[in-house]
Amino acid sequence: MLNKLYFDTSKIFDSEKEWLCSKVKSELNTIGYYSLPEESTKDIESFEIAKQFSTIAVIGIGGSSLGAKAVYSFLEPVKELKRELVFFESTDPINIAHLEKGLDIKSTFFVVISKSGTTIETIALFKYFFNKATKEQFCFITDKGSKLEEFAKSIAAKVFYIPNNVGGRFSVLSSVGLVPLHLVGIDIKALLEGAKKVKNSFFNDGYMKDTMLKKALFIAKNYREYNSNVIFAYAENLKYFTEWYIQLWGESLGKRQKDSILNVGFTPIGLIGPKDQHSFLQLIMEGVRDKTVTFIKIKNFERDLSISNITLKNLEELDIINNLKFSHLINMQEESVKEALLEQKDIPVDEIIIDEVSEYTIGTLLFYYELLTSLVAASIDVNTYNQPGVELGKVILKKKLLK
Amino acid sequence: MLNKLYFDTSKIFDSEKEWLCSKVKSELNTIGYYSLPEESTKDIESFEIAKQFSTIAVIGIGGSSLGAKAVYSFLEPVKELKRELVFFESTDPINIAHLEKGLDIKSTFFVVISKSGTTIETIALFKYFFNKATKEQFCFITDKGSKLEEFAKSIAAKVFYIPNNVGGRFSVLSSVGLVPLHLVGIDIKALLEGAKKVKNSFFNDGYMKDTMLKKALFIAKNYREYNSNVIFAYAENLKYFTEWYIQLWGESLGKRQKDSILNVGFTPIGLIGPKDQHSFLQLIMEGVRDKTVTFIKIKNFERDLSISNITLKNLEELDIINNLKFSHLINMQEESVKEALLEQKDIPVDEIIIDEVSEYTIGTLLFYYELLTSLVAASIDVNTYNQPGVELGKVILKKKLLK
Repeated sequence: MLNKLYFDTSKIFDSEKEWLCSKVKSELNTIGYYSLPEESTKDIESFEIAKQFSTIAVIGIGGSSLGAKAVYSFLEPVKELKRELVFFESTDPINIAHLEKGLDIKSTFFVVISKSGTTIETIALFKYFFNKATKEQFCFITDKGSKLEEFAKSIAAKVFYIPNNVGGRFSVLSSVGLVPLHLVGIDIKALLEGAKKVKNSFFNDGYMKDTMLKKALFIAKNYREYNSNVIFAYAENLKYFTEWYIQLWGESLGKRQKDSILNVGFTPIGLIGPKDQHSFLQLIMEGVRDKTVTFIKIKNFERDLSISNITLKNLEELDIINNLKFSHLINMQEESVKEALLEQKDIPVDEIIIDEVSEYTIGTLLFYYELLTSLVAASIDVNTYNQPGVELGKVILKKKLLK
Repeated sequence: MLNKLYFDTSKIFDSEKEWLCSKVKSELNTIGYYSLPEESTKDIESFEIAKQFSTIAVIGIGGSSLGAKAVYSFLEPVKELKRELVFFESTDPINIAHLEKGLDIKSTFFVVISKSGTTIETIALFKYFFNKATKEQFCFITDKGSKLEEFAKSIAAKVFYIPNNVGGRFSVLSSVGLVPLHLVGIDIKALLEGAKKVKNSFFNDGYMKDTMLKKALFIAKNYREYNSNVIFAYAENLKYFTEWYIQLWGESLGKRQKDSILNVGFTPIGLIGPKDQHSFLQLIMEGVRDKTVTFIKIKNFERDLSISNITLKNLEELDIINNLKFSHLINMQEESVKEALLEQKDIPVDEIIIDEVSEYTIGTLLFYYELLTSLVAASIDVNTYNQPGVELGKVILKKKLLK
């Protein structure tokens, strides 16, 4: 993984980098996600279910589904996986009915995920399906000591735990992501290897350290001017990665500061190229200068196709794309748009290049963004790991339900 | 369709409303999308293809695919349609290979859509598939006089036209959206009826006029404070509607002003509830106060399901959701989050309520947002209908291709 910064970092000072680095290092012992790349996966890898199960259905919402979905949808188009993975993450009855129609319940194994154990959407969906399957078709992932754990034990179901100090949106490399990914046949060890690579590079003074500190400090110090951060990924299978990023970035950084009355935060935006060249790009090019843009590019696509060598009458001018590989075309499109943005001189651009579509590379991307989130959050003095703003809606809902 | 405004409109003056209304009325004769709801659909409805075709594949990108995709994905989960609709809208080889794997080429009819006729992604994909099918499997939608029209005629294929004065992102109710939707069995007349309802209500001094003028002027006049506009739809099948909205809003409003050096614009954001309560909501509730939020709610879901009446050991507190219909739960969630936002007092909120999932209701939503876009654009004096910012990337790409 490469990360090229095209914006001006001459006003990022060494003293700031040192300050930020030590601030994040001080979290290492209390915040759980940092050590997930080194955790043992024995318990997860030894968990096997009957061959008859051809589908894994995750029942979970937010941090309980976005991570596994990001990894699965990235790899699924290029890997021969042993099972399909589906996600029940909404209370929308049309959506539930639609997904259920595509499901053979008898051959489905359900993974019910709720950190607190009492997430209302998850319990509602679990109740709906618990009546339609046998209890041998369920396993649970939750906090030690939660009410869901107690229930799971009462039906003698397998329970995996989420470390207490790992929040939902930072949990993709814990059991929350690894259990469903392992069950469909994804190489979770390689995933963790990718994460470890970025972690070690950062904390052992490697390539990532200077790059990520500069990027985080640039974002934080320019918060008034550039308060939106765009990921522009030239790969359709990174669509759900951008949704995972949106939760991570939005929920971690959108806060009241720890000891001030100020509401701060950055707006995360996920785009996919070349599609969004025909949509959001105009706004970036000519709209308000309030966005940074990070391109993500894949060097070697695992599948490739060529444009046919045919001449279309009256469209001879487009013979210039004949015989071109689509992988070549999409990467030229990425470079062209990147150059167009750079020509504006007032849009901060950087670029992440990954080698291929694999467990390892998505592992690097996940940990890179988790760490970047922690770095930016530390720079603007918010509590990275809580989400007090979502409670009020839950309280109001509970009142309505008790009426 | 109802649209309740919860924000303070006491500073929107009658003189402003009149000014804006007449500014938009002056576009009626030159801008084509306004008259699409009344255009004849005879040519489209009389176009039939062989029964053997079970799949319609749209080859198009941006305005050539987003509209049909929004309508199709809204209706598909609840309607028995006669054909499937798929979209080839990327040059990503993994994506193309993945979609092609699910396709039986022999039973696929292709609709190739490019307004200019030379969209590089579309021609590349067309060349790829033209070699794999017979010429009877294609029809074309393009501008009169384009090079693609000439080519289509050279192979004696059916061509539908896009009115010259209808831009890509405003083209969903032209042949661009109507042809593929008609071919899969969607009632395009009802779709246009919905659009007409909103149009007439606005231009004939109905309910929509005052509401939409107030909303547009509120957004425009508060552009410095609230420069992001969130749609928060409580329906999974409105996901692609929000993507259509993002193109419409971003590309129409993100501009240099007509006669100033200022870059203006608004950032469109699409959220789906309740999922995004567990993601973006924290940023809205506690982040920077720079977002307006429009909730969209469906009154009567076409499919409904109930939560089972079972008590889970240790989770007895959640018996309050037993027997509850999911449609009831999701709409209570929408109300709870809306109330939580309103309690903040400094987040402008409004709400759109549609009766059901139907052609008619999505027609109302489409025209409502097209018209709102024109109103906001007129208020901030940008050219609503061009997109000069996307040209530079294309020029650079062409240079690379000619190298």
